[in-house]
Amino acid sequence: MNYCSDCGGPIVLEVPGGDSFQRHVCSACGIIHYKNPLVVVGCVPEWQGKLLLCKRAIEPRMGYWTAPAGFLELDETLEEGAARETAEEACARVEIGSMLAAVSVRHTNQVHIMYRARLLDGKFAAGAESLEVRLFSPEEIPWQDIAFRSVTFSLQTLLADPQGGVHTTSF
Amino acid sequence: MNYCSDCGGPIVLEVPGGDSFQRHVCSACGIIHYKNPLVVVGCVPEWQGKLLLCKRAIEPRMGYWTAPAGFLELDETLEEGAARETAEEACARVEIGSMLAAVSVRHTNQVHIMYRARLLDGKFAAGAESLEVRLFSPEEIPWQDIAFRSVTFSLQTLLADPQGGVHTTSF
Repeated sequence: MNYCSDCGGPIVLEVPGGDSFQRHVCSACGIIHYKNPLVVVGCVPEWQGKLLLCKRAIEPRMGYWTAPAGFLELDETLEEGAARETAEEACARVEIGSMLAAVSVRHTNQVHIMYRARLLDGKFAAGAESLEVRLFSPEEIPWQDIAFRSVTFSLQTLLADPQGGVHTTSF
Repeated sequence: MNYCSDCGGPIVLEVPGGDSFQRHVCSACGIIHYKNPLVVVGCVPEWQGKLLLCKRAIEPRMGYWTAPAGFLELDETLEEGAARETAEEACARVEIGSMLAAVSVRHTNQVHIMYRARLLDGKFAAGAESLEVRLFSPEEIPWQDIAFRSVTFSLQTLLADPQGGVHTTSF
């Protein structure tokens, strides 16, 4: 961050009065530009005992398998975001269930919130960000080719505890 | 957002190729500046059957009671953020427990993540953002003077279900 997005003035790094963190502050207008972690939201859709995964068509981790997930957008709930990402990446309609996992991913400054879900009609297809979408029985899950540790954690949690409350961890 | 924080160029609103949302895009360097919801994290500390609340010394909702909570910072986990906010606002040390509530607050573009917690030594005091901090028995909770609906939801959830898994809602 070099320039103030409000006035175009030069940005300096400093700890504002009353704060305890270094912030990006505009040296012209004085506004503080905060940077905070982002929310990634998704789900693990189930259909007849199998779980839906998407093979990523984009970086990072292109070619690896993931659950449908992506950045939470403005003006949507966590559940709406999880359903939207599933529609975009897997062309599938889901009913979102209980929260499955909340994972703090420190090195990317993200919080991954994953839900249980159920395919509404068993239909799916590869969206623009997926090379392939398919259902896996628990024995078929490609554990060595999962894109992200938060997805591995979510799949492990789901298989160990199909109904239970949220499980949290951090990486 | 008027100016690109990278190059200082003028910002335009447009839907980038492959995207389905309108974004702030720099007309000079082409970078896309995303805006996404922020995470507010906090906890409801318990001590000998009573719950710790803070009377807010700052706007919004100055003078109303809240659970210790605030924006998740870079490079911290949800649990670390909840403990830090409790140290800042209530000068108290806590052990963070299970997730109590996840609340999508659409009108402020925030996700509020609240945890169960336990005071480590029963000590607390008003931090810089609090006028007063005190323990309330369940019968004493000032329901009419709670600062935020997500705090009301969290308190109701905690009292109804002291042990259970996460409860989610959206406002």
